[in-house]
Amino acid sequence: MKKISESTINRLSKYYRTLQTLIEKEVETISSEDIADIESITAAQVRKDLSFFGTFGKRGLGYNTKDLKGAISKILGLKKKWNVALVGVGNIGRALVKYNEFKVQGFNIIAIFDKDPSIIGTRVENLTIHPEKNLCKILKGERIDIVIITVPADQAQSIVDQAVYCGVKAFLNFAPISLKATEKVVIKNENMSIELESLSYHLTNRLK
Amino acid sequence: MKKISESTINRLSKYYRTLQTLIEKEVETISSEDIADIESITAAQVRKDLSFFGTFGKRGLGYNTKDLKGAISKILGLKKKWNVALVGVGNIGRALVKYNEFKVQGFNIIAIFDKDPSIIGTRVENLTIHPEKNLCKILKGERIDIVIITVPADQAQSIVDQAVYCGVKAFLNFAPISLKATEKVVIKNENMSIELESLSYHLTNRLK
Repeated sequence: MKKISESTINRLSKYYRTLQTLIEKEVETISSEDIADIESITAAQVRKDLSFFGTFGKRGLGYNTKDLKGAISKILGLKKKWNVALVGVGNIGRALVKYNEFKVQGFNIIAIFDKDPSIIGTRVENLTIHPEKNLCKILKGERIDIVIITVPADQAQSIVDQAVYCGVKAFLNFAPISLKATEKVVIKNENMSIELESLSYHLTNRLK
Repeated sequence: MKKISESTINRLSKYYRTLQTLIEKEVETISSEDIADIESITAAQVRKDLSFFGTFGKRGLGYNTKDLKGAISKILGLKKKWNVALVGVGNIGRALVKYNEFKVQGFNIIAIFDKDPSIIGTRVENLTIHPEKNLCKILKGERIDIVIITVPADQAQSIVDQAVYCGVKAFLNFAPISLKATEKVVIKNENMSIELESLSYHLTNRLK
């Protein structure tokens, strides 16, 4: 398979959601033009994104919504359940543990960690907060695939380093800092402040 | 000023943070090579990003960290305080109201809304939850610049439509759905599930 860009992967996620909605509305087929219209992009882009994975749909007939959703789901690895750990049980961490959407998509948070002795041993939903010193042991024992980082910026790199050392290859980082790892590791950043700063830029320079 | 890409704007945000850290460590000058190394990108990219805004630094001497931080801060509109409203006071919304980083960066959440009668009138931090039916009046009265959307997916577009109608031009959307607005409006998406799905893709296809 060719190397696929992050933008394509992100659009596939969006198509997946769109198809889900269409299937709920009992729509059986859809054209690339209609998908493009919903996503506010061009039909050529939609066809190009889907072409990476072989031939879906028939010329003039469009795509069968269920088949296409199934194919994208397989591409994105959503047929599998993923074991997720979360490190840093502050306000954001706590909200994510309670965020139901993750579980619906097959991402199960099954282990949570903090270093604050006053909350270690307490529960959020039905999970007990573990001390960070047990990180490696539990990541291995629970076969964790993905670690969500919700610690302060100055602690984030150290958590990634430990988790990589213990075999974790995928991270979702909420700490406002650029994290480093080897090529065999993927770190996705949720830089909420950076998105706000982009809005601030547009308000200042373009939308005045 | 030339049209600047979202990627450049996002990198400027990162440089800004890096410079902040360097200034705290009393580093006075830095080369584009050193910035590039910290951000894991090329020095040519750093120079190109900064060249959009004129000439910073001197050949062979690098950039003065305080001057460069000041210039980027001005470009990103961070010298100003922004009035922010948040709609949807569930787990994620509540965590964001308490998230201190936003305020530090000049984004002040000053009005919050929900449609659930059982929480309207109650307080989060020192803010009272307003009913969504008062959205327009309060957005205008409080001169809100940015609205954060933390309602369920099926309610998000309606909130954006109302807020745009009432003069808001910038949105940070946490609902897992593609939202639409006119060209004169900017919507940034925090698609946490989409980032997780990208990790799932990489774990399935590349990192096995």
